[in-house]
Amino acid sequence: MTGAESLCDTLLSNNVNVCFANPGTSEMHFVSALDRRPEMRCILGLFEGVVTGAADGYARMMQRPAATLLHLGAGLANGLANIHNAKRAGSAMVNIVGDHATYHLKHDAPLTSDIVSLASPMSHWVRRTRSAATVADDARDAIRVSREAGGQIATMILPADAAWSKLPSVQKPQDSNEPAPLTVPSHDAVRDAANAIRAGGPGALLLLGGAALRGQALDLAGAISHATGVRLLAETSNQRMERGRSRVPIARIPYSVGQALAALGDVQQLVLVGARQPVAFFAYPNMPSVLTPEGCACVPLAAPGQDILAGLQLLAQELGVPVGAPSLRLQNETTTLPSAGPLSGTVVSRILAYYLPEHAIVCDEGVTEARDFPAASLNAAPHDYLQLTGGAIGMGLPLAVGAAVACPERRVISLQGDGSAMYTLQALWTQARESLDCLTIILANRSYAILNGEMVNVGGSALAGGNAQRMLDLDNPALDWTMMARGMGVEAVRVSTAEEFIRQLRVGLSTRGPFLIEALI
Amino acid sequence: MTGAESLCDTLLSNNVNVCFANPGTSEMHFVSALDRRPEMRCILGLFEGVVTGAADGYARMMQRPAATLLHLGAGLANGLANIHNAKRAGSAMVNIVGDHATYHLKHDAPLTSDIVSLASPMSHWVRRTRSAATVADDARDAIRVSREAGGQIATMILPADAAWSKLPSVQKPQDSNEPAPLTVPSHDAVRDAANAIRAGGPGALLLLGGAALRGQALDLAGAISHATGVRLLAETSNQRMERGRSRVPIARIPYSVGQALAALGDVQQLVLVGARQPVAFFAYPNMPSVLTPEGCACVPLAAPGQDILAGLQLLAQELGVPVGAPSLRLQNETTTLPSAGPLSGTVVSRILAYYLPEHAIVCDEGVTEARDFPAASLNAAPHDYLQLTGGAIGMGLPLAVGAAVACPERRVISLQGDGSAMYTLQALWTQARESLDCLTIILANRSYAILNGEMVNVGGSALAGGNAQRMLDLDNPALDWTMMARGMGVEAVRVSTAEEFIRQLRVGLSTRGPFLIEALI
Repeated sequence: MTGAESLCDTLLSNNVNVCFANPGTSEMHFVSALDRRPEMRCILGLFEGVVTGAADGYARMMQRPAATLLHLGAGLANGLANIHNAKRAGSAMVNIVGDHATYHLKHDAPLTSDIVSLASPMSHWVRRTRSAATVADDARDAIRVSREAGGQIATMILPADAAWSKLPSVQKPQDSNEPAPLTVPSHDAVRDAANAIRAGGPGALLLLGGAALRGQALDLAGAISHATGVRLLAETSNQRMERGRSRVPIARIPYSVGQALAALGDVQQLVLVGARQPVAFFAYPNMPSVLTPEGCACVPLAAPGQDILAGLQLLAQELGVPVGAPSLRLQNETTTLPSAGPLSGTVVSRILAYYLPEHAIVCDEGVTEARDFPAASLNAAPHDYLQLTGGAIGMGLPLAVGAAVACPERRVISLQGDGSAMYTLQALWTQARESLDCLTIILANRSYAILNGEMVNVGGSALAGGNAQRMLDLDNPALDWTMMARGMGVEAVRVSTAEEFIRQLRVGLSTRGPFLIEALI
Repeated sequence: MTGAESLCDTLLSNNVNVCFANPGTSEMHFVSALDRRPEMRCILGLFEGVVTGAADGYARMMQRPAATLLHLGAGLANGLANIHNAKRAGSAMVNIVGDHATYHLKHDAPLTSDIVSLASPMSHWVRRTRSAATVADDARDAIRVSREAGGQIATMILPADAAWSKLPSVQKPQDSNEPAPLTVPSHDAVRDAANAIRAGGPGALLLLGGAALRGQALDLAGAISHATGVRLLAETSNQRMERGRSRVPIARIPYSVGQALAALGDVQQLVLVGARQPVAFFAYPNMPSVLTPEGCACVPLAAPGQDILAGLQLLAQELGVPVGAPSLRLQNETTTLPSAGPLSGTVVSRILAYYLPEHAIVCDEGVTEARDFPAASLNAAPHDYLQLTGGAIGMGLPLAVGAAVACPERRVISLQGDGSAMYTLQALWTQARESLDCLTIILANRSYAILNGEMVNVGGSALAGGNAQRMLDLDNPALDWTMMARGMGVEAVRVSTAEEFIRQLRVGLSTRGPFLIEALI
């Protein structure tokens, strides 16, 4: 038995049975070991950002980690942006990063780099395993850490000789200890939160994040709001929200600083439930970083890594809201469908919301153009909504890969900007390779529209030199997403009217395997 | 005048007048400043690996840096693999990495990460500028460092408020001090090298790297070899080799460890000229890391960052080889052209060598399939040959972008594996956007062939589980490079015979702007 085999067995015995991979030479013994473990589902990405983004999507839906397999520091670097997003989402992930054999490192061969320095900013835990004999223990620790605090990033560096060396005897796979249980909010925190809600009146707000946006926790938050009148709001970017008909309707803090300040302007008591104190995504001259008004009290009920459901249960008890109390529900509204005319991000969003299949998973990296989807879909069929959590664009298509691997019975829909899609378009190939039911809607505005907006803030009227336009517009040449998708084996169409979009959306939703609609807006 | 304007002016006044960019919100004031400086050529890449790889290609041809513009830690991370390659190449590069405003960092907004930790492994110099007032000084230092030791990586972190803040008065751009002059090899080193050549007889070898492979230095090495009989060899991967008819013919140390050991087996005195002691790219069980035989003396004449030309001049003097002495030249050989039949990597290489235009720049990331090109092109038209230096694949197409921007009058040809091309295929769009004369030849073997080879070494006959095949083969679905290229605005054709390849190669070589040939092999 080799170190690599011991690693495979430890992963499998701890229920890590999907490995998103982009291997290289130093990982060949691990690949060979995986080949002898057909229980592991190995999924190739043709770029590492696909690999890590897919692992994030998988973890968001499964609430447990997949493994990734990456090739030394450079391969890890290619995957870091989506590891960053996963870390910000609170997703579990176990990265296996191959490295040179221990004795080879000192020669500084061309692919050598400081993997620890690269991995640390985006990982909660980094360890270089020493030898074949330590692989199982280290993998067990990595898996345990990845499951703690709701989900963390564990990165294990695997020297090639630790993978290929033989162990003296067959080693029993190391079962991961159960991760440390989530800490339950203290009685003081619960009492303070209850007092804040009582004292705040219309100025009280529960800000929900993480696990507060799903299942029983979300229902409880709705019941507390229904009983006490406290407002509910979600963080701007969230790992996974359960939304749609029959779910507690929750708006989010707007991305725009001006709108966010307005949304929070009246808040006097802000109770944080799996959320952090809201801050601006970026700083702007003469705008505040902190989004709450001066004098607003921030009362943490449960921090992101704590037991959020228990916190809400204790809070409900403290407030005298009984189990099973009625929860906030949306009044049924009649929705009118834009059925003809030119497309826009809004029209696409409303049509998609109308046709959304039950239990769809929506991966939203629409950036500017999908901004109306959340409001349009409040009353849509129940669905899960996955967002760009860390701001590192290029997450959407890979996330869809992982969500579809996790939930093969559900339809995964990407609402995707064209600029952001370009970063990791290789994900389309993996969707085709694995026959995943991924429907991609490219919102093709042919620009970095969010940046064009930001330029206006900066004083955009003076843009005469052409350099800004050359850095913000994508229209020369125009990208043809139908060609790129077909080049990777994904069926694709282009539409420019509401009628065409409706027709092709219905085709896409009834097609098995991936399908792409380029919506010219 | 803002800090951003002061940065632009300092770059321009130091002849850094090309900026490869993928900006984001925190860089908008810099973008706005660039817009008011039309002398700066701003070139957009739709992924950061394109940006940094292009800067490498530019530096390899110009021997001076371009700037890159990257968006916080995640944007830098996306560009790191090609910064790694550039660092290993000894290329000059000035990276400008935007970051949050200084006062915003403490709020740990979603895109925040430890940029210094990310940048350090791939940079010779990293500095976070403190304020608008320090921008010009820091930029000047970055440019100076990037020009030292033949070419280095300087990474400057630019907080948004340092960019947008106004300076009390217009600041004169800071002229970079001349970089420290290259150190000239010591007299002892020259004498030791001369003695090694005299003593070594047929066991003496000059191993050339970096600037030893071009121009006068290469000619001198050839003259020394011609006069003394010392063998010449180049490192496996090189920044830029001048090759072809009328140039000193130089073979390289083979990539394969077995072949490398054979090539160096008889060497007793190894003189290093801008080269490092040769080591295996990867370690393998029961194979040595160091490629020179036991007992071989390694005699450094000039380290990679030293004055290699001066070293060779002193060595020639010491050996009594006069200026203008005859140099090694290839005997003219008659080349037969494979003009019909199925394609292979070898056939493509030989046809390309035959039709290679004068002064072409060949970017070789053909990995396995282009391995015969160097031998086939020894006698080709004079050309520059650029290689994957750091082993982080995804360098080829971006490198071609930068080389074409640097040398608009020359034809740039990418010999490109299909697997490696997928990592940074977005470069094709920039080739179209900038109308670059880039001819891309995709060697489509539809697998990670190099890894298939490595699997055999690992004991590949046991590959029965399917997992290895799923991670090494790219044939299901097959990539269609003509579609992907056209989707990004690049004209493209597919060929599968030598006749077709010749026909399309001639079309491609006479087409203005980018052209792609997918060669099915």
